[in-house]
Amino acid sequence: MDKETLRRLLTGVSAGEVPVDEALASLEDLPFKDLGMALIDNHREVRTGAPEVVYGAGKTVGQVREIVGYMLTRDANILVTRATEDMYAAVRELCPEAVYNPLGRTISVRRRLPAETDSYIAIVAAGTSDLPVVEEAAETARMLGNRVEQITDVGVAGIHRLFARLDLIRGAKAVIVVAGMEGALASVLGGLVAKPVIAVPTSVGYGANFGGLAALLSMLNSCASGVSVVNIDNGYGAACCASMINHL
Amino acid sequence: MDKETLRRLLTGVSAGEVPVDEALASLEDLPFKDLGMALIDNHREVRTGAPEVVYGAGKTVGQVREIVGYMLTRDANILVTRATEDMYAAVRELCPEAVYNPLGRTISVRRRLPAETDSYIAIVAAGTSDLPVVEEAAETARMLGNRVEQITDVGVAGIHRLFARLDLIRGAKAVIVVAGMEGALASVLGGLVAKPVIAVPTSVGYGANFGGLAALLSMLNSCASGVSVVNIDNGYGAACCASMINHL
Amino acid sequence: MDKETLRRLLTGVSAGEVPVDEALASLEDLPFKDLGMALIDNHREVRTGAPEVVYGAGKTVGQVREIVGYMLTRDANILVTRATEDMYAAVRELCPEAVYNPLGRTISVRRRLPAETDSYIAIVAAGTSDLPVVEEAAETARMLGNRVEQITDVGVAGIHRLFARLDLIRGAKAVIVVAGMEGALASVLGGLVAKPVIAVPTSVGYGANFGGLAALLSMLNSCASGVSVVNIDNGYGAACCASMINHL
Amino acid sequence: MDKETLRRLLTGVSAGEVPVDEALASLEDLPFKDLGMALIDNHREVRTGAPEVVYGAGKTVGQVREIVGYMLTRDANILVTRATEDMYAAVRELCPEAVYNPLGRTISVRRRLPAETDSYIAIVAAGTSDLPVVEEAAETARMLGNRVEQITDVGVAGIHRLFARLDLIRGAKAVIVVAGMEGALASVLGGLVAKPVIAVPTSVGYGANFGGLAALLSMLNSCASGVSVVNIDNGYGAACCASMINHL
Amino acid sequence: MDKETLRRLLTGVSAGEVPVDEALASLEDLPFKDLGMALIDNHREVRTGAPEVVYGAGKTVGQVREIVGYMLTRDANILVTRATEDMYAAVRELCPEAVYNPLGRTISVRRRLPAETDSYIAIVAAGTSDLPVVEEAAETARMLGNRVEQITDVGVAGIHRLFARLDLIRGAKAVIVVAGMEGALASVLGGLVAKPVIAVPTSVGYGANFGGLAALLSMLNSCASGVSVVNIDNGYGAACCASMINHL
Amino acid sequence: MDKETLRRLLTGVSAGEVPVDEALASLEDLPFKDLGMALIDNHREVRTGAPEVVYGAGKTVGQVREIVGYMLTRDANILVTRATEDMYAAVRELCPEAVYNPLGRTISVRRRLPAETDSYIAIVAAGTSDLPVVEEAAETARMLGNRVEQITDVGVAGIHRLFARLDLIRGAKAVIVVAGMEGALASVLGGLVAKPVIAVPTSVGYGANFGGLAALLSMLNSCASGVSVVNIDNGYGAACCASMINHL
Amino acid sequence: MDKETLRRLLTGVSAGEVPVDEALASLEDLPFKDLGMALIDNHREVRTGAPEVVYGAGKTVGQVREIVGYMLTRDANILVTRATEDMYAAVRELCPEAVYNPLGRTISVRRRLPAETDSYIAIVAAGTSDLPVVEEAAETARMLGNRVEQITDVGVAGIHRLFARLDLIRGAKAVIVVAGMEGALASVLGGLVAKPVIAVPTSVGYGANFGGLAALLSMLNSCASGVSVVNIDNGYGAACCASMINHL
Amino acid sequence: MDKETLRRLLTGVSAGEVPVDEALASLEDLPFKDLGMALIDNHREVRTGAPEVVYGAGKTVGQVREIVGYMLTRDANILVTRATEDMYAAVRELCPEAVYNPLGRTISVRRRLPAETDSYIAIVAAGTSDLPVVEEAAETARMLGNRVEQITDVGVAGIHRLFARLDLIRGAKAVIVVAGMEGALASVLGGLVAKPVIAVPTSVGYGANFGGLAALLSMLNSCASGVSVVNIDNGYGAACCASMINHL
Repeated sequence: MDKETLRRLLTGVSAGEVPVDEALASLEDLPFKDLGMALIDNHREVRTGAPEVVYGAGKTVGQVREIVGYMLTRDANILVTRATEDMYAAVRELCPEAVYNPLGRTISVRRRLPAETDSYIAIVAAGTSDLPVVEEAAETARMLGNRVEQITDVGVAGIHRLFARLDLIRGAKAVIVVAGMEGALASVLGGLVAKPVIAVPTSVGYGANFGGLAALLSMLNSCASGVSVVNIDNGYGAACCASMINHL
Repeated sequence: MDKETLRRLLTGVSAGEVPVDEALASLEDLPFKDLGMALIDNHREVRTGAPEVVYGAGKTVGQVREIVGYMLTRDANILVTRATEDMYAAVRELCPEAVYNPLGRTISVRRRLPAETDSYIAIVAAGTSDLPVVEEAAETARMLGNRVEQITDVGVAGIHRLFARLDLIRGAKAVIVVAGMEGALASVLGGLVAKPVIAVPTSVGYGANFGGLAALLSMLNSCASGVSVVNIDNGYGAACCASMINHL
Repeated sequence: MDKETLRRLLTGVSAGEVPVDEALASLEDLPFKDLGMALIDNHREVRTGAPEVVYGAGKTVGQVREIVGYMLTRDANILVTRATEDMYAAVRELCPEAVYNPLGRTISVRRRLPAETDSYIAIVAAGTSDLPVVEEAAETARMLGNRVEQITDVGVAGIHRLFARLDLIRGAKAVIVVAGMEGALASVLGGLVAKPVIAVPTSVGYGANFGGLAALLSMLNSCASGVSVVNIDNGYGAACCASMINHL
Repeated sequence: MDKETLRRLLTGVSAGEVPVDEALASLEDLPFKDLGMALIDNHREVRTGAPEVVYGAGKTVGQVREIVGYMLTRDANILVTRATEDMYAAVRELCPEAVYNPLGRTISVRRRLPAETDSYIAIVAAGTSDLPVVEEAAETARMLGNRVEQITDVGVAGIHRLFARLDLIRGAKAVIVVAGMEGALASVLGGLVAKPVIAVPTSVGYGANFGGLAALLSMLNSCASGVSVVNIDNGYGAACCASMINHL
Repeated sequence: MDKETLRRLLTGVSAGEVPVDEALASLEDLPFKDLGMALIDNHREVRTGAPEVVYGAGKTVGQVREIVGYMLTRDANILVTRATEDMYAAVRELCPEAVYNPLGRTISVRRRLPAETDSYIAIVAAGTSDLPVVEEAAETARMLGNRVEQITDVGVAGIHRLFARLDLIRGAKAVIVVAGMEGALASVLGGLVAKPVIAVPTSVGYGANFGGLAALLSMLNSCASGVSVVNIDNGYGAACCASMINHL
Repeated sequence: MDKETLRRLLTGVSAGEVPVDEALASLEDLPFKDLGMALIDNHREVRTGAPEVVYGAGKTVGQVREIVGYMLTRDANILVTRATEDMYAAVRELCPEAVYNPLGRTISVRRRLPAETDSYIAIVAAGTSDLPVVEEAAETARMLGNRVEQITDVGVAGIHRLFARLDLIRGAKAVIVVAGMEGALASVLGGLVAKPVIAVPTSVGYGANFGGLAALLSMLNSCASGVSVVNIDNGYGAACCASMINHL
Repeated sequence: MDKETLRRLLTGVSAGEVPVDEALASLEDLPFKDLGMALIDNHREVRTGAPEVVYGAGKTVGQVREIVGYMLTRDANILVTRATEDMYAAVRELCPEAVYNPLGRTISVRRRLPAETDSYIAIVAAGTSDLPVVEEAAETARMLGNRVEQITDVGVAGIHRLFARLDLIRGAKAVIVVAGMEGALASVLGGLVAKPVIAVPTSVGYGANFGGLAALLSMLNSCASGVSVVNIDNGYGAACCASMINHL
Repeated sequence: MDKETLRRLLTGVSAGEVPVDEALASLEDLPFKDLGMALIDNHREVRTGAPEVVYGAGKTVGQVREIVGYMLTRDANILVTRATEDMYAAVRELCPEAVYNPLGRTISVRRRLPAETDSYIAIVAAGTSDLPVVEEAAETARMLGNRVEQITDVGVAGIHRLFARLDLIRGAKAVIVVAGMEGALASVLGGLVAKPVIAVPTSVGYGANFGGLAALLSMLNSCASGVSVVNIDNGYGAACCASMINHL
């Protein structure tokens, strides 16, 4: 509630046009409701049809079914990440048009999709083993109304493959780099592309990879500027960042 | 601002007794000022003369001097933790009654001290090398209006010394255990005392102590219930927890 | 055995009223039995009907059945934590009134429950995935005779939800905060509430969460004073701490 | 060199208009020079007056002096990060208009500064101890042609201070959050602001902070979407990311 | 494309012997194709029949089948590492001569094997539990055209067994040491053999082995010179290194 | 082969009493066989009937069966550690008198057992969850010819139980302490007993226990002297150490 | 106080031979004094002239001086470990016969030295950089009444030097192995010697040595049985263990 | 001593041509001297003028002076690594022709240098801050008789600089890659060069670099085959490996 609205309300009370009880109802929980509204405004900016998101990991099939069921009553677009096939079976019963991406482990329900941007997000991946994260990022980005270009299998061990796709990557408004093992692709791309690069380390690898730690540290220490990092395997988070940038 | 206050204000406006601009001034930043007031209330509970606290580490002497100078204008009790002798010299120029605890590395300015509690906090330490943390905790607890009993050098390697002091420890309302190396004292005391135990791991030790990590993990994994833990060497934090409990 | 008791006993021996053998039986294992009695006294403070607790993890169904069977002969209240459904099936055969909390993974047998406190413990959780830890803490706290208020799904990503419940939280005598991922809720609440806050990091999260390490370190480094921490996922331990405080 | 340029060149050679040696000079190192040119183009996008950057840490005063001396011959804007006062003394001899930011440890030489953007980057810091990183980020962002707004001392332990500055933060095109200790500010802001948030963990803290690791893990595990992270204390890197976004 | 080739091409164009379009086709994608060719040359050195390699871990049976099917159309030697029996069943349907090494978890298809070297690689293992890594290394080395000598169960706990095989080890051109637990064999051999030693830590062990970390750190800190290290359990990588050396 | 033996041999050759070929057979592989003999001597000290030991973890049932089968031909006592029930089934087919300890996961074949020592090893355990490690240690110690006394469930959370058993523990020649969680029992016992204490951290615990790391670090940092440590869960290793001491 | 003593005391009271107050004085603090006496007995076993030990690290010169001064009044042998030259200067003023070992950083005051054992402790070190730890161990062992043999510079990189000293090592009753870097010497010796081996990892090394972690993990994972480990650089602790064994 | 030599010796004894004592002198310490001789042979292969090496870190100036003084009596080439200027001053007094490399921190005394190889080792470094490690490697390699080519400042953030030097790198017989921060250069080069690549992670970087850990893990997880790794900052070790390869 901004100052002018508040002044109008008080003037109305002063003039006897607004009963005290009605003004009271508007004001009494102002500290939090207003804050809440701000957040809703805030959300509105992001959304215009943005999906409600459910993080499936650690939830039971029953819990996911119940949450999605509630969301469906609000006619929302819905994205379930880290979803199992069992979760999908349960959701599909509620909503036959739900779609499952088995690689990206996402369930998506598209009701009133936001318009797709003209500009696009490039999602670049080092190897085929990184595809689950790529797909999670791509599903998320699309649900958030972004055009997406996927470029896979351009790891630095065969760097000529990367150069062959450089124009497509440079044309993006934001770049997501998905890489496991030593994650060197983030640094190499960071040096070649003048766009914001969001790096996603993946847990692909073994031994001293320590579940993605090697790629994570590598990306955080990138000698190229313009690279920021999200959590290991967090394709969803990278897509949220990139979508915010792509919608600027 | 509670509902009744708000109703009174609006009734005043409606009755023409409170001008709109005056009401507006009270209300316009309500979301945050009210929240702030809540916090001040909140603080009042804790304080009644509680010190303003400055964390000295990583601050320059000039910064500490400036902050303390400002606090002195508010006639506050002041506690500077992790303070160097240089900081003390600077503060003493501003305020000759400031006191320095060289072991605990605290500067304290006592203006209107809170009444001391009848119940007390026991601060129990494994070894003499833990004394800096003990002193920081004790200074803090006293500045917060607590009676304090210190029991030192009762590490588990000579456990009979601990038993000899058990009655004093059991008589406390809250117990702070300060221990480095393997931090076993927290578990032993947790099993012997039916009072809340706040454990402070210290960085005392060497080799695979890893700067207090050994004691920290040991305390977090205590097989005795009723033990909670604060950060390594964080005597100040332990005293805040214990003081809250002691003032219940 | 205090000094007066001892004097009375010796006076009785001296006066021929107490046979030497009877006195001997009272005294011979004094070093340890007395200590044991102290501990039992100690325990008595805590209990007045407190449950016997079995930590189920790493035990076989047979072991749990045997231990519970023995406890039942002592007519104790019983709490089994980290209990599987199989353990419950075995216990229910011995004791049909045993109750299983599948989310909290606890089995509870309530025989002579302690009176519930007037004051209450607030258990505040960041997300629905933290519920197993919340339920373990709540079951434990109730078995220890505490009134409990649960506030869930108030993570800092939607901080207005937290503010809406702040009064309930501030009314508690002790606050348990349960949060995974980055565990920021502990710091935020620590800054808003002037009561002892016991933080439980959970292993909820993925990637660089490292099984709860991120939340644990976050909570230990809380910039808010008055926050102490227990082990990852240790709802039981947090409830023991909070119960001790709540019974002061 | 695109296809049409190449065709024109070859047609010129074929027609005898372009001597073979001249064509050869254009083509012989094509694989790399062209790539280099692409990178220069690439750089041009970023720059239009962007500074040459020298990372001062681990370099001797002599090395910094030599590098800056060379850059001055190219009439470049120059930014030295992690610069000591000694480095500044050496640089000022070469270039009296060089400016030293002692808090941010930067030396800057402004020759042909890029036009400042209308949109701005908000740099939000939890505590005064984070100021060195804030200043490094602010210096860098300004040298890259960005309007900057700094909001400091809004840590989550006193969250009302943050709310009071929320409008300013929300008005930014990109937000840099600088926080040490538990780094919770990133998550809280990530939940309140619908703009890309770049989080910089700082090494401020002690004990189980492990040189910024606590804040780093906390930020990587942020439960708020739209938060990406750079290396500990890397104000420079955060500003590069934010500048790329702010210039979109 | 070297300078002379380029000059000949341009001279041809200038002389009208090479049509512009033909020259254009050779040159237009020079930056990347040339680079690619370099890599192919590069590869040719290594190969002359070297296998195409598929890293099986994290791939589905279907993916492996598809990749191998494509490779078979190119008549390549094929090596699948970290292959399951299910993968082998799928590959054997496509190619009955495929061979599975159950210990080394490799599938190999030998079409036009490279000539075996006269010099050999010694693969020395501490214990029988290290055999899977040994077998992976041996399969890889053989597929790359190397003579291989395997020496197993010569761990330092019974060092006389190692001495009995020392001549065979010293006769090799490159030595691969495979050891888990404390990995001391690498240091001992490094001190006894004047040939390049490539150490492979294995994840064999338990407790504070931390999945091979103990052996990894041990080998990296070897007091013997001439020892370099590859990732934990990375028999494939060690064989690639050793094969490069053995083919010098 | 000591100098006198060698002189006798050579004198025999010189005198024609020992044929050259016979002397050659004794000497030709002297560098290693002698070393081997030394080791066998070495072993003889330990053994006089000591078991051959097979580490079962990471071995297949077939491998264990084969190894044990070979050992049986040498009429050895046999100890298989980390043995599964399947391994036992396979071994029992070869050797019906083999005995399985399901808790300690050991298979033992006793043929010519060494005489039991008069002095004994005390194996002291904190909790019932540590029993598998206790049993592994006890089985091993007994197979090595030691009298063993087991004292369990004397964790420091109920320290009076420990004191009640102190005489038995102090009577031992070597003490093995087995404890998980925070491992404080090792320090407490180290302070109470003047005998060599070998501490075995166990992986019992959860959360920040990190698979036994907490207990391991705790024990390594023990403030009590006379405590040395073996690997996490390594009951076998502790028994070997204790047996060596007990046989002195 | 054993049962018979107690019976005699009570009989005396019953017979009027022992006044109640005298009996009371003997009994009232029995739980702790008796325990204390037990410990003193316990200590007596160890000592017979054993030194009082002061851990100098983290203590001020003044504190060391005060503690040693007090000890001198008790005419004790004194050992200060991790002592600086300044500490020595202060101690020498009090006690001119104090001796400083600059390499081992020990101050020793020998008053009534215990008789030296016939059997000896072998202290074996990998490199000259390990000498400070060797010297600390040797000083400690000698102050505890042990004959000591030092064998240095026998690291595994030149393993023949170790073999040349093997007889001397094998003749010891307990063996201390001191090694940094990869610490392989412990495993090698553990396989060659049938005596208890106490391994001391040292912080000698760099890079991925991580302050002794590499050697520590290596030694804990030793494939040789009979090896136990103390904290990094803890020569004092190793000597205490070895002395206990050597005095059996 | 091979079998034929042994037979000849024994035949000589049998024939009375070789006195028993003479034979005895040859044989009595055969186990170790022979082994030692083997090692010396072994060394001879490496050396032919190879330097004696002193690792300066952790040694006093006096110790270095003494060791070098002894080596000079043997007329050896000498290399001191991690040497301070003070060490150099001390060495120069003994040997005026000693040369100090202040960047590489090496002292070298060249007496009878080995012939330089025709083939060369390429030492490739990412940034100027890596130069100390480069120089240590280069000094070492030259002292071992290798031709060396240094290529610096070719980090992946400006990858075109690397391509411009690729021919020189590919021409080497062994390649040393020196890189800090994220160490991506090792992977990129590993994919471009068909020669053995020895990667040296450096401690250059800050924050989550953790003293070189980021680069170390990155290099160990390299997606390019043919890359092996030595310890952080271990230029000396890399040069030893490369020299062995270069001399094959």
